[in-house]
Amino acid sequence: MPTTPTGSPAGPGQQGTHLTHGAHPHVVPRHPRLDPLADRYAARTHGMKTSEIRALFSVVSRPEVVSLAGGMPAVTALPLDAVGSMIGDLVSGMGAQTLQYGSGQGDPRLRERICDVMALEGIRDASASEVVVTVGSQQALDLVTRVFVDPGDVILAEAPSYVGALGVFQSAQARVRHIAMDDDGLIPEALEQALVECRANGDRVKFLYTVPNFHNPAGVTLTETRREAVMAIAERHDLLIIEDNPYGLLGFDHEPMRALRARDSQRVIYLGSFSKTFSPGLRVGWVLAPLAVREKLVLATEAQVLCPPSLTQYAVARYLDTQPWREQIKLFSELYRERRDACLESLDAMMPAGTTWTRPDGGFYVWLKLPHGLDAKRMQPRAVNALVAYVPGIGFYADGSGREYMRLSYCYPEPDQIREGVRRLARVVEAELDLHSTFDAVDTGTFRAVGRRASGHDAETIVGPANSNAYEDGRA
Amino acid sequence: MPTTPTGSPAGPGQQGTHLTHGAHPHVVPRHPRLDPLADRYAARTHGMKTSEIRALFSVVSRPEVVSLAGGMPAVTALPLDAVGSMIGDLVSGMGAQTLQYGSGQGDPRLRERICDVMALEGIRDASASEVVVTVGSQQALDLVTRVFVDPGDVILAEAPSYVGALGVFQSAQARVRHIAMDDDGLIPEALEQALVECRANGDRVKFLYTVPNFHNPAGVTLTETRREAVMAIAERHDLLIIEDNPYGLLGFDHEPMRALRARDSQRVIYLGSFSKTFSPGLRVGWVLAPLAVREKLVLATEAQVLCPPSLTQYAVARYLDTQPWREQIKLFSELYRERRDACLESLDAMMPAGTTWTRPDGGFYVWLKLPHGLDAKRMQPRAVNALVAYVPGIGFYADGSGREYMRLSYCYPEPDQIREGVRRLARVVEAELDLHSTFDAVDTGTFRAVGRRASGHDAETIVGPANSNAYEDGRA
Repeated sequence: MPTTPTGSPAGPGQQGTHLTHGAHPHVVPRHPRLDPLADRYAARTHGMKTSEIRALFSVVSRPEVVSLAGGMPAVTALPLDAVGSMIGDLVSGMGAQTLQYGSGQGDPRLRERICDVMALEGIRDASASEVVVTVGSQQALDLVTRVFVDPGDVILAEAPSYVGALGVFQSAQARVRHIAMDDDGLIPEALEQALVECRANGDRVKFLYTVPNFHNPAGVTLTETRREAVMAIAERHDLLIIEDNPYGLLGFDHEPMRALRARDSQRVIYLGSFSKTFSPGLRVGWVLAPLAVREKLVLATEAQVLCPPSLTQYAVARYLDTQPWREQIKLFSELYRERRDACLESLDAMMPAGTTWTRPDGGFYVWLKLPHGLDAKRMQPRAVNALVAYVPGIGFYADGSGREYMRLSYCYPEPDQIREGVRRLARVVEAELDLHSTFDAVDTGTFRAVGRRASGHDAETIVGPANSNAYEDGRA
Repeated sequence: MPTTPTGSPAGPGQQGTHLTHGAHPHVVPRHPRLDPLADRYAARTHGMKTSEIRALFSVVSRPEVVSLAGGMPAVTALPLDAVGSMIGDLVSGMGAQTLQYGSGQGDPRLRERICDVMALEGIRDASASEVVVTVGSQQALDLVTRVFVDPGDVILAEAPSYVGALGVFQSAQARVRHIAMDDDGLIPEALEQALVECRANGDRVKFLYTVPNFHNPAGVTLTETRREAVMAIAERHDLLIIEDNPYGLLGFDHEPMRALRARDSQRVIYLGSFSKTFSPGLRVGWVLAPLAVREKLVLATEAQVLCPPSLTQYAVARYLDTQPWREQIKLFSELYRERRDACLESLDAMMPAGTTWTRPDGGFYVWLKLPHGLDAKRMQPRAVNALVAYVPGIGFYADGSGREYMRLSYCYPEPDQIREGVRRLARVVEAELDLHSTFDAVDTGTFRAVGRRASGHDAETIVGPANSNAYEDGRA
């Protein structure tokens, strides 16, 4: 079966060349005039590229553009005066601590409070000693990857996956193998098939990376039944799981689901963040790991940043101690629910036939699939001309697939802006369809999930959550 | 000449095994019961070890111990009320910015102000576009290393070197080759000899890492003549230099020296920090690099932390805009000068013959060499029993040498505590000498610099700045 794991952008051949040991023949400089150091970079550096999100940054910041691109939380919904005087007091009254170096593992008091937060998702056996505070959960993922992954190792990750995670994996020169999802999240059978095939290929699978709740970018949530199935597979195949959960407390319809980590304390490493429940500008995240791994993570973070910022850690701990943070999370959830509703209602009303999308019940994102033949990346300049921005889907795949997808974020704009943005986007898609139909007959009526034509779950062809008939049914 | 570069703790042989590509045979678990994941870590993880400084942490925090170990700045000398209300106002008035995500490269306004700070050391051509803000200059060094260094590459670094830098290099699986220093800093002839030998060996030298001002841990400063010599060697050998300069503005006797970066904008990557001039608890550092490298660094930091904390960046920019920061640096320098004096006067008065040390004219550290035959690491438990703490020298070498050295920090304790600490330390050394003399005749009178017996500068035997007759002369 030709199911080779998908390589990082550099490609395995190029990696192999760079990683050859022994004599280092001098490489011919690529752009000797532009960059005299071009022949000195590490192998990992050659694969680095600007993310689809950052490429949009300058466009998106123009005020006339409705941005459905960024994942910025609505921080102005915080009680800014109360938070400001709280942080000011921390510096005036406790400057000797808040302005000084701290421990690499992070403030013990904050780590205690983090355990309280995790208890809301059923993690009741965590101890503060197993928690490492990080510079956002991005650093947590980078640390875990550095501790576990050698170049060439395989990481299993949902198709699509969080673009920042793919950046970490690329930087670690890992090979990413995508696992299909549908509207119930990661498909367990596809996971198991990938594990079997990797073993047959002699691939060294280091872990599964998954965002079970309100997935970024797919907007779907792993069901309870599937959580059990995934844990059973992990047990059978001795698989380590990295559970990345920045959005878990931001559900619209029901209580938080029980975390994977709540089901197995040794096999699951859990990543959390205050970026979506409090403030991303403080960059406070964490990782919960078994003690032996915790120790490695502390050494890795000491080599990377010495210690996380003291002031921001004290700010979060004091916020959890003195402010009504649970009520604030409810307030955030209400606000995002209203925006989600604005987004889905506009999509329902305005998008041309053949377009499908997920219906998130929490978090920040809708994952949209264009009618057959359209390409979200190629359409992007026309969308920007029409004053609406989104993130093209290809950034969320390690293998260059996903051109027919886009991510829409409803977290930041006001509902009226969202409606206007979707209206503009719908016109762009319609115009694109018109253009397309003049060159090629588009059969929008027979849109069906790629890969579902075959009977099995082939990792090569099943590449996205919208690849499920359920999405069409859901919209009916 | 058997001058093999010194390997990282893992050793080159072990590295070679871990880095072999192709099939990955299953490794037998090391401690299957203690750590079920022990066979899954990356190759870099096996070499990680607790630093000599962190190992001391619990001991040092006991109030009865005089700690000459930690490098904590005297942050309580800051105007805490003013800084507190300044930061509080930033959150209350600008929460939409200070609590939100920022750009990976860092706040543009702060990067402008950073250029003003660097101008104080003669860097007048830097532009904000060449600056990347980092989570302390530790992250700056980690990013530079990730961008340039593949496993097995050679990094040149002073003997001794900053322990946190060695941690970064170990994590990158680099091989560190130490370059001898004396009281005028890095010895240019030793640098050139190392470059010639590395070329002969086919070693791929990625850069020289150096702390030219008030070196950590050696306490010495690279003279003007040597700066010119080092730059000439860099030019001749096409050598990239990483100039790490956290202490440059904290001189006691003269204006700041002209940075290496001020002499060559393409060949020198400069690392700076607000940890010693303002606050380490904010974790704001930076790197100044040519634009092509800057671009790689931004991609690397986005994969590592997405962006540095917004609040702490705004805090530093506002501090530089509104507070008398130059006067504050003078105040810090006066305070540290007083503590340096207390340290050197006590050492002069109390240390037994045969002990030598450097005489810093800025920064935080004195580097002390014990009389022949004594071992700072083995002596450490007895020092702690005598209620004084220091950092044993071996942590500052990648090759396990330096047992006869220790680092004394005078930055944090009050002058009276410093005197008491040195008094206790002198007694411990005396007792150690007594003990030692009962087993072995110690000829303290003939203490001479190791390696100066030979005519050349042999990188194998010249391992520390106190290895110079000048130190003994200086004490006479």
